[in-house]
Amino acid sequence: MAIAHEGTSRILLTVIPGLSDQYRSLIRTAAVSRGFEALFFESPSAAGDTLRKAEIIFGHDPALAENVPALRWLCSPFAGVDQFLPAAVFRTGQAQLTNSSGAYGVTIAEHIVMVLLTLLRRQIEYNDIVSCRQWKRDLPIRSIRGSRITLAGTGDIGRETAARLRAFSPLRVIGINRSGRNPDGVFDRVLPIDDWETVLPETDVLILSLPGTPETSGILGEKQLSLLPGGAVVINVGRGSAICQKALEKKLREGRLSAGLDVFEQEPIPPDDPLWSCPNLMITTHTAGNLTLPYTVDRIVRMFLENLDHYCEHKPLAHRVDPARGY
Amino acid sequence: MAIAHEGTSRILLTVIPGLSDQYRSLIRTAAVSRGFEALFFESPSAAGDTLRKAEIIFGHDPALAENVPALRWLCSPFAGVDQFLPAAVFRTGQAQLTNSSGAYGVTIAEHIVMVLLTLLRRQIEYNDIVSCRQWKRDLPIRSIRGSRITLAGTGDIGRETAARLRAFSPLRVIGINRSGRNPDGVFDRVLPIDDWETVLPETDVLILSLPGTPETSGILGEKQLSLLPGGAVVINVGRGSAICQKALEKKLREGRLSAGLDVFEQEPIPPDDPLWSCPNLMITTHTAGNLTLPYTVDRIVRMFLENLDHYCEHKPLAHRVDPARGY
Repeated sequence: MAIAHEGTSRILLTVIPGLSDQYRSLIRTAAVSRGFEALFFESPSAAGDTLRKAEIIFGHDPALAENVPALRWLCSPFAGVDQFLPAAVFRTGQAQLTNSSGAYGVTIAEHIVMVLLTLLRRQIEYNDIVSCRQWKRDLPIRSIRGSRITLAGTGDIGRETAARLRAFSPLRVIGINRSGRNPDGVFDRVLPIDDWETVLPETDVLILSLPGTPETSGILGEKQLSLLPGGAVVINVGRGSAICQKALEKKLREGRLSAGLDVFEQEPIPPDDPLWSCPNLMITTHTAGNLTLPYTVDRIVRMFLENLDHYCEHKPLAHRVDPARGY
Repeated sequence: MAIAHEGTSRILLTVIPGLSDQYRSLIRTAAVSRGFEALFFESPSAAGDTLRKAEIIFGHDPALAENVPALRWLCSPFAGVDQFLPAAVFRTGQAQLTNSSGAYGVTIAEHIVMVLLTLLRRQIEYNDIVSCRQWKRDLPIRSIRGSRITLAGTGDIGRETAARLRAFSPLRVIGINRSGRNPDGVFDRVLPIDDWETVLPETDVLILSLPGTPETSGILGEKQLSLLPGGAVVINVGRGSAICQKALEKKLREGRLSAGLDVFEQEPIPPDDPLWSCPNLMITTHTAGNLTLPYTVDRIVRMFLENLDHYCEHKPLAHRVDPARGY
């Protein structure tokens, strides 16, 4: 293993709050062997002037893309990077932007199955009954078995979710993406997003894992929501911008739909937002995919280190984000 | 289709509260074609004296096995039939007892996956946070991926559960049953119940779907619970008698284990039972497998009608319960 050259000014900056010593050590070892000094901070403000000297940044905060003359590569430990898209440093091509798409499929798929079963089995109502120490067991429930499932988004999250849902014997699992190509056969059928309204009337469960881009903004509006059959379940783990939240809230209050939302037009949801008390809605606080699952942290660090090898060997980076396309 | 003989005294009595007209009609048609009069009541007391004349009873209430001189076959719409085991009418061989084992695997497997993910992802705590309109997302969570799962009970429920859990990439899925035989290869390994303590120290998730019999009573006691590693999850959907509830409650209060219980030593749980406020516990009110899922009702009626054919053709009944064995 090479020793860092003395006086080197190449800096690899990691700004991931709570990253354990084990992973700091892995990153430091790899960085040093590649001639970098590895620095770790809990926040961009704690990094201070070091930010200006960093050639590589591993972090998620949008402030990490400001005032960074030395930056050549920023890797986000998350999959969604919409907050970085306006940054000049990527628009001009001065620095490359990569995300950690592929690290979140496992945890977000588990979240989706949990939320879907909770809604179908009316477990939120049952939890309320239990918290009142009541014994009641006659609420009509539903099953994934025989359900018609549509997944808008066929990336890592969509595929891992589809693979798990298939084990529950749904009637069919349809994918929606930009091209209409079936990435690995885990879907019964894949439609291009331009045709997706044709499948909404036959969708019992609609799952959105779309990136936050101008194209996906407001894609599920009043019109599309009205195409869903009564009783349909909507789950969103992508970006809140994909859904017209007011239109969905209306359908939920009417009892026509139920929903599990992990992402919102505004996060955190404002304390006085009527959404907090909306019926037929399971709110989660953007917990579907974050860094609280050890498996996910392990994946993002290992993906970053693989890409560090690519970077140092002047090979194309994996998980590169096109700032114009948005993912 | 044959017409019922006039003056026939052969009575088929169905006592399933809330059974829809669709299924009443299916049963009536089949019964009449076999020379039976089909009668439907919401409760044994509503049936009154008709109970004494019934040759076949399709129902679950233990009162249905009392004062029934004409009874030759009782079919329970549930899988657990421990409440019928002491009845003289089955002990003497006057009547056969069958259950609806095989109709509940789908719904109970979905319940188990929901409860397991809810516990691993700390969703009960997150639900409390959301109900206070707070935005918090940093609770450490766990995954089914890589978990060591042990299912005590390898019948329909155990197998349907194992098949679904496999899609989540657990490290391994071990079955426990009386014989140690692997029913259909859905388990990585099956151990006889006499050896099950050897696998408890390597079990992250323990799922019980055991029938309520003298053999299974108290099978998970203080000693066995202590063999589980810290942080293990216990889920019981079989019978409350399988677990020493006080010993489990102690481990939950110590924070050593977490649990999802659908069945209890006493049901309903008494209003003043300390269990209601026990931490690290998800209580469900025996809702894992009941008749509120249309798919389940469909299955139990169709299984009953198949068995009605067997009965009328003097063939052995399927799902027959041995009153001495208890399932």
